[in-house]
Amino acid sequence: MKTMKTISLEYEDGRLSVLDQQRLPHEEVWVQCRTPEEMIACIRALKVRGAPLIGVAAALAVAQAAEAGAGREQVRAAARALRESRPTAVNLMVAMDRLLSAPDVVAEAERIFDEDVALCDAIAAHGESLIAAGDRVLTHCNTGGLATAGIGTALGVLRRAHERGKPIHVYVDETRPLLQGARLTAWELEKLKIPYTLICDNMAAALMSQGKVNKVIVGADRIAANGDFANKVGTYGLAVNAHFHRIPFYVAAPWTTVDPRCPGGGAIPIEERDAEEVRAGKSPAGSQVFNPAFDVTPAGLVGSYILDRGVFSNSSVQEHIRRGS
Amino acid sequence: MKTMKTISLEYEDGRLSVLDQQRLPHEEVWVQCRTPEEMIACIRALKVRGAPLIGVAAALAVAQAAEAGAGREQVRAAARALRESRPTAVNLMVAMDRLLSAPDVVAEAERIFDEDVALCDAIAAHGESLIAAGDRVLTHCNTGGLATAGIGTALGVLRRAHERGKPIHVYVDETRPLLQGARLTAWELEKLKIPYTLICDNMAAALMSQGKVNKVIVGADRIAANGDFANKVGTYGLAVNAHFHRIPFYVAAPWTTVDPRCPGGGAIPIEERDAEEVRAGKSPAGSQVFNPAFDVTPAGLVGSYILDRGVFSNSSVQEHIRRGS
Repeated sequence: MKTMKTISLEYEDGRLSVLDQQRLPHEEVWVQCRTPEEMIACIRALKVRGAPLIGVAAALAVAQAAEAGAGREQVRAAARALRESRPTAVNLMVAMDRLLSAPDVVAEAERIFDEDVALCDAIAAHGESLIAAGDRVLTHCNTGGLATAGIGTALGVLRRAHERGKPIHVYVDETRPLLQGARLTAWELEKLKIPYTLICDNMAAALMSQGKVNKVIVGADRIAANGDFANKVGTYGLAVNAHFHRIPFYVAAPWTTVDPRCPGGGAIPIEERDAEEVRAGKSPAGSQVFNPAFDVTPAGLVGSYILDRGVFSNSSVQEHIRRGS
Repeated sequence: MKTMKTISLEYEDGRLSVLDQQRLPHEEVWVQCRTPEEMIACIRALKVRGAPLIGVAAALAVAQAAEAGAGREQVRAAARALRESRPTAVNLMVAMDRLLSAPDVVAEAERIFDEDVALCDAIAAHGESLIAAGDRVLTHCNTGGLATAGIGTALGVLRRAHERGKPIHVYVDETRPLLQGARLTAWELEKLKIPYTLICDNMAAALMSQGKVNKVIVGADRIAANGDFANKVGTYGLAVNAHFHRIPFYVAAPWTTVDPRCPGGGAIPIEERDAEEVRAGKSPAGSQVFNPAFDVTPAGLVGSYILDRGVFSNSSVQEHIRRGS
């Protein structure tokens, strides 16, 4: 398999490694994934995360096993096991289904990687036109180079606008409980030298009412056929607040995030994670916790879908999904 | 001065102490406040917190100084300094103004303490009627025995409903950045044996859309003449979400939280606190941060105001404030 490198995923000379995203921003530690089982553990522990990236990383893990001499049935079993490692993001399932039906697993994994880079570029090219000089844009979770093989989805749009010389300011939701905004998006924005302000998730509404934010842009883990989409928990409440304040709300995602067989948001399986992620040693040890990793935003709250094939309204996206897949 | 005790404030034999709320729930450490300056430090560090409680605690600190022999001018200077220790909650200012014009500071401080206990009971008596068996009520921050001299404001309403035998379930917003919900409200609910579920603030909207919450009740730090109110940051976004989901939204507070001289929410000073409360060592050290401790909810989003004098709609509360003060 050829050498492939992103800021958080590397394959070279038979060695597949991921940057441990749980230890960012303070430590940059690479973890080698020698087997599909090790990749599953990294995905479950969110060492590698982001809907597009987990699809790409899982594909490379399967291809690595194939190159290392795993038989056809072993390779298929690995793809099926990886497919189940997290339930909400559909990119993982799309990538594994492609490997399961591909004549050449290694070539298909390379294609998935290259495609993801190109999809990010296409999203950025379309989305960049929606961002104006002087915009103050709120984003949630992490949707940048750490979440994809390329420059990212929602954050890639902002990066491209910045690269085109548009002065923008990014407001970053910290994104409880795992702080992907505070740890990962802030780390990326520092590296990119894009000005940003970190807030607690519960401060977004105050920012909106004070006119400090004029656009909201987020990624997605699965977009259903009717345009409803799942994304990191907190996205839905943001969308409601953006709607109330009449602030444009954009979703940026590649076609690998679209699930035409899923009729609506209610059919998207939502992962619930461990209570201790929320308690974090701060609340009474026995506290009962509700910890969904994602929530569902109905299509009606979306201003524009920024996909690799163009920008769609919530009425046009349904037709696009029906035709496009 | 007579002996006065709450779960987090004690005066006995010349000794004034507060339970350090920053160390709850895991450690119950009492801190002695020997001077008004020590009380100011405790208030600024949120060792003692909660709009009604800081008014009461400040009053006891001034009265303690008076009893210890401070002269009239020293006592007045102490009251003025305490009055400035935090800017948003008006209860503190109301209490200090009372001491500044009282002929007997010690008797007035005792009255402020006793009144706060009675105000909580009155709020609970009125508010309890709004809570039905089977209710699943979301609350934000801490508004219980830790925030007042009595049983609390919003949490006092829920406690009284529970004591009357109504089975209820409380959903507790963790309340970033300082986790007053996760640390303090959870601690109180454990002691009261009221069933509860802890969530991250950004999960509230998902709970609402899933029908898991049918009422929202919060406290207030200042209610303006037009019914707008300031409360712990995050309250406003919750109110917007409750409005969107047509879920009743209640504010519970004593008259000491009402500021008839403040025309509207825009005139309420909002305290901004240290960036490190948000960064918490997790984000890049240089991250710029927006950290308002409170936000403002417009009267139009409030279903009912539960005050010590009764339950008011957002149209009737203005008339009540005009007449009542």
